[in-house]
Amino acid sequence: MDIRKQIGEELLLFDGAMGTMLQTYGMKAGQNPEALNLEDPELLGRIHREYVEAGAQFITTNTFGANAYKLQETSYSVAEVITAAVEIAKAATAGTGAKVALDIGPVGKMMKPIGLLDFDQAYDYFREQVTIGAAAGADLILIETMSDLAEMRAAVLAAKENSNLPIFATMTFTEDGNTLTGTEPEIMALSLDALGVDVLGVNCSLGPKELIPIIKRILAFTNTPVMVQANAGIPVTEAGVAKYNVASTDYLEVAKELAVLGVSVIGGCCGTTPEYIRDLEQAKVSFVKREANKLKRYVCSAQKKVCLDGQITLIGERINPSGNKALKEQFVAGNPLAAIKVAFEQVQKGADVLDVNTSLPMIDETDYMTKIIDGMSGLVEAPLQFDSTKPEVLEAALRRYSGVAIVNSVNGKESSMAEIYPIVQKYGAFVVALCLDEAGIPDDADGRTKVAQKLIDRAGAYGIGSERLLVDCLVLTAAAQQKAVMETLKALRWVKENTKALTTLGLSNVSYGLPFRALINRTYFAMALTSGLDTVIINPGADGIVDTMRAFNVLSGQDEGAIDYIDYNNKKAVVKSDGPKQENAARSY
Amino acid sequence: MDIRKQIGEELLLFDGAMGTMLQTYGMKAGQNPEALNLEDPELLGRIHREYVEAGAQFITTNTFGANAYKLQETSYSVAEVITAAVEIAKAATAGTGAKVALDIGPVGKMMKPIGLLDFDQAYDYFREQVTIGAAAGADLILIETMSDLAEMRAAVLAAKENSNLPIFATMTFTEDGNTLTGTEPEIMALSLDALGVDVLGVNCSLGPKELIPIIKRILAFTNTPVMVQANAGIPVTEAGVAKYNVASTDYLEVAKELAVLGVSVIGGCCGTTPEYIRDLEQAKVSFVKREANKLKRYVCSAQKKVCLDGQITLIGERINPSGNKALKEQFVAGNPLAAIKVAFEQVQKGADVLDVNTSLPMIDETDYMTKIIDGMSGLVEAPLQFDSTKPEVLEAALRRYSGVAIVNSVNGKESSMAEIYPIVQKYGAFVVALCLDEAGIPDDADGRTKVAQKLIDRAGAYGIGSERLLVDCLVLTAAAQQKAVMETLKALRWVKENTKALTTLGLSNVSYGLPFRALINRTYFAMALTSGLDTVIINPGADGIVDTMRAFNVLSGQDEGAIDYIDYNNKKAVVKSDGPKQENAARSY
Ligand SMILES: [Zn+2]
Ligand SMILES: [Zn+2]
Ligand SMILES: [Zn+2]
Repeated sequence: MDIRKQIGEELLLFDGAMGTMLQTYGMKAGQNPEALNLEDPELLGRIHREYVEAGAQFITTNTFGANAYKLQETSYSVAEVITAAVEIAKAATAGTGAKVALDIGPVGKMMKPIGLLDFDQAYDYFREQVTIGAAAGADLILIETMSDLAEMRAAVLAAKENSNLPIFATMTFTEDGNTLTGTEPEIMALSLDALGVDVLGVNCSLGPKELIPIIKRILAFTNTPVMVQANAGIPVTEAGVAKYNVASTDYLEVAKELAVLGVSVIGGCCGTTPEYIRDLEQAKVSFVKREANKLKRYVCSAQKKVCLDGQITLIGERINPSGNKALKEQFVAGNPLAAIKVAFEQVQKGADVLDVNTSLPMIDETDYMTKIIDGMSGLVEAPLQFDSTKPEVLEAALRRYSGVAIVNSVNGKESSMAEIYPIVQKYGAFVVALCLDEAGIPDDADGRTKVAQKLIDRAGAYGIGSERLLVDCLVLTAAAQQKAVMETLKALRWVKENTKALTTLGLSNVSYGLPFRALINRTYFAMALTSGLDTVIINPGADGIVDTMRAFNVLSGQDEGAIDYIDYNNKKAVVKSDGPKQENAARSY
Repeated sequence: MDIRKQIGEELLLFDGAMGTMLQTYGMKAGQNPEALNLEDPELLGRIHREYVEAGAQFITTNTFGANAYKLQETSYSVAEVITAAVEIAKAATAGTGAKVALDIGPVGKMMKPIGLLDFDQAYDYFREQVTIGAAAGADLILIETMSDLAEMRAAVLAAKENSNLPIFATMTFTEDGNTLTGTEPEIMALSLDALGVDVLGVNCSLGPKELIPIIKRILAFTNTPVMVQANAGIPVTEAGVAKYNVASTDYLEVAKELAVLGVSVIGGCCGTTPEYIRDLEQAKVSFVKREANKLKRYVCSAQKKVCLDGQITLIGERINPSGNKALKEQFVAGNPLAAIKVAFEQVQKGADVLDVNTSLPMIDETDYMTKIIDGMSGLVEAPLQFDSTKPEVLEAALRRYSGVAIVNSVNGKESSMAEIYPIVQKYGAFVVALCLDEAGIPDDADGRTKVAQKLIDRAGAYGIGSERLLVDCLVLTAAAQQKAVMETLKALRWVKENTKALTTLGLSNVSYGLPFRALINRTYFAMALTSGLDTVIINPGADGIVDTMRAFNVLSGQDEGAIDYIDYNNKKAVVKSDGPKQENAARSY
């Protein structure tokens, strides 16, 4: 079986629990489960064989906690444990065609900002596991039971960068529908898709029935094959022992439902046994191959997603030291607080996404970018756009950012595309693509659309779909290049009508050098929206910008019934009047 | 010679003066010149023959003052005088191929509002002259030495409606470049073209050299053949006798210049003699046939023209009794003052053109429309748009209006096109064409563009070029028909890109029924401008409308260097601050 070809084509069976099976087979309390790979390989082989005999096409190595941190309590090294575990599994599956999944669970200590574990430290634990597991002959890597998207990303990157094995990645959700650290299923799907995992899904968590709504949410946000390994119900503790009360026949019934929905990899987690897997065989006929969803595009942080295909997305431009003395001073001091404050202000004014520009000659930009990302993590929910001329800063940011970000920017110069596109591809980011190249900014729409087409074509060659580009047709100031102002809109319309790319604009540039800039900006904003602008890089607090957006959303039909419009203006009217003059607010002029 | 085919193809020669020739031949002071048609036909025949022998291809009847008003001082009737004059001229030209032009000069008393002569009275004088002259066998009608555009229009309409003869129409300009009543050459050209005269131009006025700049201005505003009959210089009175000091050779030099410019009919006015005409023969070789100008479109009053092809034209919608109590009361009382006041207010706020709607069930709409037009004449310079559902009201307005107006409106119903298009064609008006028909307002852009195409096609069948239409793709309120709002813009863009028609919109309708209308209106205005809106029917005093227009004009490059924008906002800032805070005004935000 070529795993990558087979997944998604039929219902594939994983094995069930290892931990609860070991308990059943008499593992003592306090025993390190992974040490058994060296201390009782027979037992493990037996469990694996039972699963293979039950019909499992994938069996999972007993390496859930086999990382350098957790193995400190044993006398074994990671290499000893993982190599033994993979060998046991391979022996148990020899001649059966079943595949061996190298199991990777959480490190066992919380990551920043909740805990102390740094991204790079987590990565190093996972890298060690992956390297050893791959060398020992695992067929794929299963990263599972993750609650923290940051930790999951570190593990996925470690797997990607240190092996060529297929990556199956499943996270664990609580009864509120999110992971323990607050990541919702959709965001998990978006973030793991961005990293290009082969399978994503849910394990452990709850009983199979309770997972259905979560699975549905995931299926709606990805076209990647989805995997489910539920517990045999929510455990009830009886006489100090966890009891799982979903029978294998009930598990099968849910599995059939999941197969109909298009879930293509199924197995079991805590409380499941070979009996469950044997029964699951009957779910295979229920499998319905999924049609590709027409997916909307989203950027996201670990807590919040923002759709780029709906209403205009406001990208706040104010986290930028140029022209902001306070910000500059704190940047130099390496303090992210001023940036966080500016982030909050912009969100409060209406920003959906925040551009983070750390360009200052006297600072270590990578270090400071990292500090801002860590500082904002969990505090500022708005997704980020990373703004730098330095590829190494952009890569450091994308690497550590839990979510799907925008890179600002690539341009049509060969050197820029060669530096930026590989990063964008690797991290599944969006990228602002500026319509300029070695010859500068073309004067007219035709010249800019040619650069746009080049940017799209070359992105394709790097494996980046045009739908990941935010083409910026570049507006110059009307004060100096008045004739080019309408050319920008013409080019913008062309991009919108002839490509799948999104459009963006650093809008306030249009009024640079003119007096009464706000009126020029808000008018040009309405004009650009009409021409097909999807996102705008702007100061959301500038006079009339959010007003114009709210009105546009009514006029374009995106704010159905003008609900948001009326609410927004009523609130604004109350703020203005400093009192309850709301009866006037809702009256027409 | 088929006059209509020949004009414009070569330089054609008219005759020279009659009045000064009669003086030369001894006409006594106090003699009514037109009485000579009956009292000394020999003398007139002799002068005509001298001109024919000199080379004149057109000779002019001695009927300049042969109207019922002026002939009161004689014992002859208009019929006697004109019939005799035409017969003398026909006899003098018999066998020569020269054509006889029935001469019509001003009535001899001033028209309203300066004088007392009513439009209909003037028309009746001219109708009598035309009817008799045509019956007597004149080959064409020459209306000349007119100073008042209103009187000229009355004469042209009389000629059009009571004969099929070619109409040559020339006005007289003073040294300031305008007619005595303040009409500039361009406006004369626009207004006479609208009525479809065959030749238009200048006579009398000044010496030939002084007319060159005026002729150039006319040539730039029309593709109709242009005629010049200058005086032999500006007369100097010597011993009680007017002396003209431009020699025939000097006249010829100027005539050559005019022929090079494309003037295609030339003759002489006061002080010219057969000698001048004989010399003019030499100008014929200088004639350069004109290429058709690519003309911009203008509406105009007698005092002011407004280009429809440049910056957006604001059409003030407030002269409308619905929803305006003061206006309604004065409408009922037949008093135009309230309308004039609203006109001034709108012009002050930025209106370029004023819509005049007199729809009220209890008034005689035709009578009141006429009163408003007369009341505004000479006071309100902004060109007018006549707004009524009644064809007879629209026709009465167009008939009496000295200028080129817009009719509001025709729609795609057969009955509407059959009623409105003939009027529009006859008076050379522009017309607002609403995209609705018997089936109502189509839901989507496609349906509306189909009606637009029908409106254009049918206009063509009535002899109205698509460039005279202001297509209104109709915006419905976003409160009730939100999805249709963008369809309007789509249709608008289609009209702009696929036809020669102008576009217009009754814009404030979009926000009807919503709170915070101004923000919706100004945003939709910017959107519509971006989609190709040429004119808008709106309250120019509404918050943000003129602001948006000013900003758009900068962004679209029409306000070069943002000169108007900065000036407008500086003034506004001064008004707002009630004082000289101008140093802030010119600072960016
Ligand atoms: Zn579990
Ligand atoms: Zn498990
Ligand atoms: Zn004269």
